[in-house]
Amino acid sequence: MSNTNHKFELAARPVGLPKRSDWTYKEEPVRDPGDGELLVKILYISLDPAMRGWMNEGKSYIAPVGIGEVMRAGALGRVIASKNSKFAVGDHLYGGFGVQEFAISNGSGVTKVDPGAFPLPVYLGTLGAPGMTAYFGLLDIGQPKPGNAVVVSGAAGAVGTVVGQIAKIKGCTVVGIAGGADKCNYLVKDLGFDAAVDYKSEDVRKSLQKHCPKGIDVYFDNVGGEILDAALTQLARGARIVICGAISQYNNTTPIKGPSNYLSLLVNRASMKGMVVFDYADRYGEAAREMAGWIKTGKLKSREHIVEGLETFPDALLKLYKGENTGKLVLKVAEA
Amino acid sequence: MSNTNHKFELAARPVGLPKRSDWTYKEEPVRDPGDGELLVKILYISLDPAMRGWMNEGKSYIAPVGIGEVMRAGALGRVIASKNSKFAVGDHLYGGFGVQEFAISNGSGVTKVDPGAFPLPVYLGTLGAPGMTAYFGLLDIGQPKPGNAVVVSGAAGAVGTVVGQIAKIKGCTVVGIAGGADKCNYLVKDLGFDAAVDYKSEDVRKSLQKHCPKGIDVYFDNVGGEILDAALTQLARGARIVICGAISQYNNTTPIKGPSNYLSLLVNRASMKGMVVFDYADRYGEAAREMAGWIKTGKLKSREHIVEGLETFPDALLKLYKGENTGKLVLKVAEA
Repeated sequence: MSNTNHKFELAARPVGLPKRSDWTYKEEPVRDPGDGELLVKILYISLDPAMRGWMNEGKSYIAPVGIGEVMRAGALGRVIASKNSKFAVGDHLYGGFGVQEFAISNGSGVTKVDPGAFPLPVYLGTLGAPGMTAYFGLLDIGQPKPGNAVVVSGAAGAVGTVVGQIAKIKGCTVVGIAGGADKCNYLVKDLGFDAAVDYKSEDVRKSLQKHCPKGIDVYFDNVGGEILDAALTQLARGARIVICGAISQYNNTTPIKGPSNYLSLLVNRASMKGMVVFDYADRYGEAAREMAGWIKTGKLKSREHIVEGLETFPDALLKLYKGENTGKLVLKVAEA
Repeated sequence: MSNTNHKFELAARPVGLPKRSDWTYKEEPVRDPGDGELLVKILYISLDPAMRGWMNEGKSYIAPVGIGEVMRAGALGRVIASKNSKFAVGDHLYGGFGVQEFAISNGSGVTKVDPGAFPLPVYLGTLGAPGMTAYFGLLDIGQPKPGNAVVVSGAAGAVGTVVGQIAKIKGCTVVGIAGGADKCNYLVKDLGFDAAVDYKSEDVRKSLQKHCPKGIDVYFDNVGGEILDAALTQLARGARIVICGAISQYNNTTPIKGPSNYLSLLVNRASMKGMVVFDYADRYGEAAREMAGWIKTGKLKSREHIVEGLETFPDALLKLYKGENTGKLVLKVAEA
């Protein structure tokens, strides 16, 4: 074997938006797998908003990526050599393989996927971590009831698109908040949202008031900042806010903007609860089966936004923070 | 009958701390009660942090006090004339009688209290709205478990003193946050708190870290602002934050400071939930019986801070926002 690996290692802790020099792009020969190991050729890499947080120092729900370590990422690949009896050459796998072209794995934390059932990128989106986040965040924390008004921010993203569609399946009225007319049209016309609010051109507070005249019952927040504050002004009594992320704040060079209107929680007897998808790992199978069924019956549409070429990684990642993706952002590294 | 009433009517919506000119002090003859009405001589008036919010315009959990209306307040009084068969002269009553010396009532929303069982001011504190707030906020929203680390801010106030003592009864480790050495000593030496943090002289974050080395399981917040933000940095996994009030922010002339560290809810899978005591009205009896038992057996100490004279009301109220009271602040209006 004479494969050559290319990879991005973390070189510096970014200040503000990450730049290319925060990583080192390296070339190295690929070694053969040892006993119990397998060699994976990476095909698709998942690009997620949370990656920005992993680059920071300090306590979070997961340890930071170390300087000099390959940049952490979930990815899909194909086994091309194996000395592990559980995995055979040709198996397609999901794992935390990192931002590179080849990975050596001992098989722990790796799961097989069926390339015949769905296109591979779907396993990084609707049937991957973003889909699981949407499913458990909405159903377990948000607890929507039929007829509830459900609002989701970052609505055209990997998590938001799934949150809104599941809420529709559960009989809710769904309003998505997204940036730009194209995304808003997509949410309403393609995904069946009841309404969409373009935060770039509308007064979010007023539009939410119009679309949710009885108040918001469930607010699923992916963005934080001004939009979270606007949603807080429109809560219904007993509302549930799911804190899934705060993409508007991840690249701040100033302190995070806390929600000034948080006392609306008191006035409305509402709750705000954080969630981390890893806590639901033992129920991923259950969720994946149900969502796969919804995809097959056309109730749930999965959309991926594919960017090509490992070397484009630093720019591709920024699309998330600039709001340039619709659906799950995936970096294609090699032909399946 | 020839009684003369004195009362404070709301004259203006305050900007910042309320001042005497935000009310009009009036004298008027007391009329006789009509059919179905009773005349109450007010003895004690409850002074509560929430009164500042009632003076503002705009939507909240209760309608604002109107300009020209008597200032809203809970109070205790004695019936001195009655044309209502449910109430007799000499009955002691709790009701929303307002900041005045005499009140005419039709009896709705009024409850009898037993002056032989407890000193009357206790019915405005531990056995009144603050006690109910502490009881249901801690037990229903905070859900403390034995061994949990419970932190309460505004700990030397009417709500905080009761929260901490109930948490001790439930087998928790209790840390109070209060301003000044006297209050802190009182919490630890008199009320049995495990520790107290003096926010005026200590780094609250560091002190909480020291006293709750495994993190805070329940944080009962009466103050908001910087102290809420400090507590957010020290949450244990699955922590519950009870949003009861935000006294540090009630007199702001700038926008409320939102909690910058709210993403700790995500990292720690924690929740923040608002509560309004009125929602528990149908369970007040149950709570009062249990708390009365704790008082009688010495497990729960009730402390009132009595200020005398109706005409001192504007200055007396400010003691709450200046942190000058320990325990329940009560305005004594007449001899029982």
